Amino acid sequence: MSNPVLNIGICGFGTVGQGVWKHLSANRARLESRLGVRLNLARAAVRDLRRPRDVRIPGRLLTDDALSIARDPSIQIVCELMGGTKAARQVTLTALRAGKVVVSANKALICEHGAEIMAAARRHGGHFFFEASVAGGIPIIKALREGLVANRFPRIYGILNGTCNYILTRMKEQNAPYAEVLADAKRLGYAEADESLDVDGWDTAHKAAVLAWLAHGVWVRTDQMIVEGISRLTPADIRNAATLGFGIKLLAVITRDFRRDELSVRVHPTLLPAGNVIANVNGVFNAISVSGDVVGTTLYSGRGAGRDATASAVISDIADAASLLRHGKGAHLLGEEPVGPSRCRLAPPESIRGRYYVRLTVKDQPGVLARVASEMARHRVSIATVIQGPADRPRAASLVLTTHESDERAIGHTLRRLRSLATVLEEPVLLRIGDFAS
Amino acid sequence: MSNPVLNIGICGFGTVGQGVWKHLSANRARLESRLGVRLNLARAAVRDLRRPRDVRIPGRLLTDDALSIARDPSIQIVCELMGGTKAARQVTLTALRAGKVVVSANKALICEHGAEIMAAARRHGGHFFFEASVAGGIPIIKALREGLVANRFPRIYGILNGTCNYILTRMKEQNAPYAEVLADAKRLGYAEADESLDVDGWDTAHKAAVLAWLAHGVWVRTDQMIVEGISRLTPADIRNAATLGFGIKLLAVITRDFRRDELSVRVHPTLLPAGNVIANVNGVFNAISVSGDVVGTTLYSGRGAGRDATASAVISDIADAASLLRHGKGAHLLGEEPVGPSRCRLAPPESIRGRYYVRLTVKDQPGVLARVASEMARHRVSIATVIQGPADRPRAASLVLTTHESDERAIGHTLRRLRSLATVLEEPVLLRIGDFAS
Repeated sequence: MSNPVLNIGICGFGTVGQGVWKHLSANRARLESRLGVRLNLARAAVRDLRRPRDVRIPGRLLTDDALSIARDPSIQIVCELMGGTKAARQVTLTALRAGKVVVSANKALICEHGAEIMAAARRHGGHFFFEASVAGGIPIIKALREGLVANRFPRIYGILNGTCNYILTRMKEQNAPYAEVLADAKRLGYAEADESLDVDGWDTAHKAAVLAWLAHGVWVRTDQMIVEGISRLTPADIRNAATLGFGIKLLAVITRDFRRDELSVRVHPTLLPAGNVIANVNGVFNAISVSGDVVGTTLYSGRGAGRDATASAVISDIADAASLLRHGKGAHLLGEEPVGPSRCRLAPPESIRGRYYVRLTVKDQPGVLARVASEMARHRVSIATVIQGPADRPRAASLVLTTHESDERAIGHTLRRLRSLATVLEEPVLLRIGDFAS
Repeated sequence: MSNPVLNIGICGFGTVGQGVWKHLSANRARLESRLGVRLNLARAAVRDLRRPRDVRIPGRLLTDDALSIARDPSIQIVCELMGGTKAARQVTLTALRAGKVVVSANKALICEHGAEIMAAARRHGGHFFFEASVAGGIPIIKALREGLVANRFPRIYGILNGTCNYILTRMKEQNAPYAEVLADAKRLGYAEADESLDVDGWDTAHKAAVLAWLAHGVWVRTDQMIVEGISRLTPADIRNAATLGFGIKLLAVITRDFRRDELSVRVHPTLLPAGNVIANVNGVFNAISVSGDVVGTTLYSGRGAGRDATASAVISDIADAASLLRHGKGAHLLGEEPVGPSRCRLAPPESIRGRYYVRLTVKDQPGVLARVASEMARHRVSIATVIQGPADRPRAASLVLTTHESDERAIGHTLRRLRSLATVLEEPVLLRIGDFAS
């Protein structure tokens, strides 16, 4: 008696799509024997049928019409690996409305249309899996949904963008300016031609939205988050941070105050204590710290992107989908209903508390520090440390201040005032200090 | 229409059992709404009915007969949290033969009787879940079974015993001898009255056996492993290692050579490069590095033991069990058939290659190093570095050697020879160097 066949369609046959095809082909026998099904790579949708590809695939399986795969009644599992949010949304909704399983790596799509996608899945009996959308091959979605199901999550934070972490690591190791490292990263293929999605924090914000929904059941829009990127950081910031005992990482930080029932989701360069493991996760690696109210703090790290790591996550979703289609709904689907209650509100700026690092480029003349200090005092922002040094322009000095605990409203008001001072020559650089021991 | 009730019995109501009861009670409403079942804490088996407990539990739910819970036809999920392998085995097999789900934190039991337990589950339609058996609250079992299902695993290694990691961390931080730190650890409750299971490596070996089975489908007995503990380490070893650029951790190391199809499972104090994240995981924390052939290296860390972390894992198994009983078999059960093919053989000593650290206490007289060096050369073990220093006994010196790559057979022969030299005053200390970048 032969096992039932599951037909898989792959929409989007770029790096990740080809990686899925390659590794699924290579591991098919082992997976089939574990899952008790036959996995048939039925069709793949490409943008350009004539383009040469690394992966061998019979021409008759190719189409340039992704929607035809979403509609194909013989296909049970649709992998949406096209990227973008327009055609991808159409493919995803079409497949879900036909009751199919959709496996997605598309964090931008989930962030923008997650509520609609989940509703379509529920209404039409489809299923939406998205392990590959956050942190590549690290099974963080499964950990939050299933492994840590006993927990509520006061804090989740981490490095979710390998490009930014690569740039920050190189800036630190080589004492090199941002623009130079970025150019190198583009040459080496670690950064896109248009780098803004990565370096301005939007990719991280998309992933933060996915994690926040999983952990708290709330869809937070990126325009409701603080989102700041790394492009204004200098090697001097990294050196100053090291002097103060910190490393700098671009972090997504998701905190929930269960007493007030306030949720905060933010993305910004963060000073992490040098001894914190995540401060020492370098290069293209991602890392996520998850604090649960029962388990304590757990940490997950690995490659956050790339063909193979992403394929590993997509294939794990295909395996879960196969098990679902073969045996019925299992625990791994819990996440279609979010983990937490969904009635928390977003934290107002005065509830988001922490310490800050402020770098000012000021006129090199007496009295400037006194003036800055009095502005900060006026907003009740208390100074913890001061580092004065040369600036990289003539007749200017660099003034680096760290604060005691304050909040986003107070520091925001302070920065607006400092910005307006005649002695402050450039837009201030504001970094958050993440006093996270682990 | 009300949801079906699942009756849960807890056998063993010590620290972990009470933690499960407490957190399951506290989170019941949220879990029930996610799982679509009612979770009823039906009965708990204790050793002594009269003993006072931290957790409030109606007296009528208590029994001192654990087997009666395993046999109770109204109970669907049996949590075996008794420890030991005799009564625990009987309870586990009885429940599985009755087709129940057994949730276990008992690594010693799984290591010794895993094959029998899995066979009983298969034969009688029972299910055996054991997320809590390795690395406490870190969902490593689920990661290996499901999240990384696309992968084969050339290398898995990590810190699996919090007591040993606590002792090594304190020895390093306080430059304190082993015996002193152990006594402190006992006073603080971080070590058992009989510490041998932890410090001699057996607890780690039990967990290594569980991970090796999950990853490779082979039950490896502890008498087939190299198992060495930490009791002979000195603060000088930790200092020497630091001088050489290493930290020392007690690691389980599971390697598979897929070309030769050889598997090696071993437990020993290991010198890890100081920059390796796991070298910087301190205190009672566990950490596991998993290298998959598709995903690359991923890392998992968190509290490896304790009431709450272990309860988090047990409750995640209960949730999977509830989903299984409610909806039918799901992907999370894949692991009942091991991930990998099971026909690999155990690596012979000459296949287990690496570099070594050897500390000898020798007579403080000329010519000793020459004699030692010639013995090593005779077995083709090549010396990389030498540190000579004072020993902690009169008229003796300490000779610390590291080697270039060699293998277990060669280093074993060498040590036997060195041990027999009149100038070597004490049993040599042998440590392995783990040249793992991540």
